[in-house]
Amino acid sequence: MMDHKSKRIAILSPVAWRTPPRAYGAWETIASNITEGLVDHGWKNVTLFATKDSITKAKLVSFVERGYEEDKSQIPLVSTCLHISKALEKADEFDLIHNNFDYLPLTYLPFIKTPMLTTIHGFSDPDILRVYRDHKDTYYVSISDADRDSELPYLATVYNGIDLSNLTFRETPGDKLVHYGRIHNDKGTHLAIEVAKKCGMDLIIAGIIQDQRYFDNLVKPHLNDSSIQYIGPVNPVQRDALLKEAYAVIHLNLIPERFGLVMAESMAAGVPVIAMDLGSCREVIADNQTGYLVNNVDEAVRAVAKIDKIDRRKCRKRVEENFTIDCMVSKYEKVYEEIFRREEKC
Amino acid sequence: MMDHKSKRIAILSPVAWRTPPRAYGAWETIASNITEGLVDHGWKNVTLFATKDSITKAKLVSFVERGYEEDKSQIPLVSTCLHISKALEKADEFDLIHNNFDYLPLTYLPFIKTPMLTTIHGFSDPDILRVYRDHKDTYYVSISDADRDSELPYLATVYNGIDLSNLTFRETPGDKLVHYGRIHNDKGTHLAIEVAKKCGMDLIIAGIIQDQRYFDNLVKPHLNDSSIQYIGPVNPVQRDALLKEAYAVIHLNLIPERFGLVMAESMAAGVPVIAMDLGSCREVIADNQTGYLVNNVDEAVRAVAKIDKIDRRKCRKRVEENFTIDCMVSKYEKVYEEIFRREEKC
Repeated sequence: MMDHKSKRIAILSPVAWRTPPRAYGAWETIASNITEGLVDHGWKNVTLFATKDSITKAKLVSFVERGYEEDKSQIPLVSTCLHISKALEKADEFDLIHNNFDYLPLTYLPFIKTPMLTTIHGFSDPDILRVYRDHKDTYYVSISDADRDSELPYLATVYNGIDLSNLTFRETPGDKLVHYGRIHNDKGTHLAIEVAKKCGMDLIIAGIIQDQRYFDNLVKPHLNDSSIQYIGPVNPVQRDALLKEAYAVIHLNLIPERFGLVMAESMAAGVPVIAMDLGSCREVIADNQTGYLVNNVDEAVRAVAKIDKIDRRKCRKRVEENFTIDCMVSKYEKVYEEIFRREEKC
Repeated sequence: MMDHKSKRIAILSPVAWRTPPRAYGAWETIASNITEGLVDHGWKNVTLFATKDSITKAKLVSFVERGYEEDKSQIPLVSTCLHISKALEKADEFDLIHNNFDYLPLTYLPFIKTPMLTTIHGFSDPDILRVYRDHKDTYYVSISDADRDSELPYLATVYNGIDLSNLTFRETPGDKLVHYGRIHNDKGTHLAIEVAKKCGMDLIIAGIIQDQRYFDNLVKPHLNDSSIQYIGPVNPVQRDALLKEAYAVIHLNLIPERFGLVMAESMAAGVPVIAMDLGSCREVIADNQTGYLVNNVDEAVRAVAKIDKIDRRKCRKRVEENFTIDCMVSKYEKVYEEIFRREEKC
C-alpha cells in the first residue's frame, strides 16, 4: 500500500474570512483545523486554498487578497467564483480535493477528474439541496448525524474538531451565565436573556451581530452596564477570559443545530451547556453529564438550578475524546483512505 | 468555406425571468431576440438554454423550471450555477457558446474547449471586472461603444436589437410626457416628475419598482389620479398603448446608460426622447434629430419646448436602420464568422 500521507491534498477553504479567522468564521476555522491537523499528523503534501492573508503550515495558494466580509469593496460572488474556479483549475495537481466551501464547487465536478470530498457544513436553505442532489456520485461528510439529507450518500459523520490551546479548563465555575456565537434569532439570544432574568443571574453576551434588526429589537433594549452586557465579538483569547466567568453557557437555539462549536468550546473550558434539544445538540452534549438538553425557557431555568450536579471534568473529557482536532483529523484520514480505495478500484 | 449556418450555436440566457420575459427582463429579451433572429436568418442548429417555461423556435434546453425572480422559493445563485454548469457540461455539443448571462460562465472557461462569446450587458459593479480581466483570451462584445472596459479585448459593439412587432409607429404625437423602465434613482424617475411639473404637462410613469424606498420617498408623494400617474409594469402591448400617449419620453438617467432599450423602443414608436448625455445615450439618440441630449432638468424642460422640431419618421427610421433584431443578428453573424475564422487558425 502506498503511503497515503504522501498523497497531494487540497483543502478548499471559504474566502469570507481569513483562514483561520480573526474572530468569527466557523467554516474557515474548521478548514484551518483540518489543514494544520493533517500537517501535524505527518501529511507531506497539503495545500490550503484560502485568502492571501491566511496563515498555515501547509502550502498556501490564494487568488483573493482578503476575505469579502473583511473588505466590503468586493462582491462576495466575484471572490467566491474566482477562488473556486482558479483552485479547481489546478485539480490535476492533487489526489483529493477536500471542499469546505459549500455547494458552488460541486458545479465544477463534471469538468475535473480528481475526486472531491465535500464536508457539508450546513444547509443554509433547503433550495441548495438541488445542487447536492444533482451530484450523488461524489463524496460527502456530514458534521453531525442530525444534519443529514436523506437522499445524499454520506461516507461518514466527522464532528468538528476544535483547537484546545486557547480553551483553559477551569474546575471552579464562574458566577455568570454566558451566551455567545452569532447574534441571531436562530441562536436564541433573546431566550438567554429571559433565562438570566428568571434566574436572577448576570448574563454576558458575545459574538458578531448577524441580524441588526433582531439585535436592535430583541437584545439591545435589555442591555445595561451590569446584569446584562453585550461585549461584541471575541477572539480566542477573549473567549477564554469570557468562559472563565461562566457558570453555564445558555444556547437555546431555535433551529436544529448542525454541529455547535460553541457547545464544544464551552465544555472544553469545563463549562456545562444548557441547550435546546434540536438537531445535533444531543450528539455534542451528554445530557445530564456535560449539560442539559431542554425544550423551553422554563426547563432551562430549572436546568440552571441543577448545574452544580455536573462534573466539569466530564465536560472537558467529552471534548478531549470526541471534538479535538486530533479526533477530527484521525476520522478524516479514514475517510480519505476509503476514497483512495474506491478510486483505485475505478 | 463551410456553411456557417449549420454550425451548432448555444445561446445562454439568464434564468432570472422567462425567455422572452413576460414584462421586465432586458437580458432575457436580447437573448430571445438573438435566438429567434438567428433562426429567422436560417441558422439550423440553434439551442437556447433558458428556463423551462421559455418560448423559442430554436431547441430549448432547461435545467431550471421558472425564473428565480418569478418564483421566490429559489435561491438565485443555486438556479444560476446549476443552469450555467449543466449547460456548459454540454459544451462539446456546440461550435460556439454565446453567453448572455454575465460573468459566472467565464469561470468555467478553463474547463471547456468550445469558444465562448460573451455579450457584456453591463458592469453591475466595478468589482466584476476582476472576472472579465482574468479572462482576456475569450471573445467579448459590448452593447455600446460607451460601455467598454479599456482593458478588455472586444471583437465589436453590437447594439441591442428590438422586436418592432409591438411598437406601432404613430406620426401624431400624444399629449403626455412618458417615463418608463425600472423605477430606480439610476433612471431618474424623480427628474422626469420635475420636468413634467415645470412644463405643466401630464406624466405617465411605468415599469417595475426596483428600489421600493426610492419609489416611496421620491416618486409616490408626487402621484395623483390625473397629472402624474404610475401604472405599474407594462407588457409589450401595454407599452404600445403607453407610447401612443407620448409627446416625448423623458429619460434622465443619472448613471451612464449601457445601451438604453427604452430609448430605442420609444423612437421605434416615433416618440422623440429627451435623455441625459451620459454613456450610450448619444449613440442611440441622434441629437436634434430623434431627440435631445441634455445635462439637467432645465435643459430637459427647454428640450420639451422644441420637440415639435423633431421629425417622428426620423425616429422610426433610426431604429429600423440600427436597432432592429435583423440589424443585431446580422452583426452577430459577422462576429460569429470572425470567431470561427480565428478558431480554425488555432
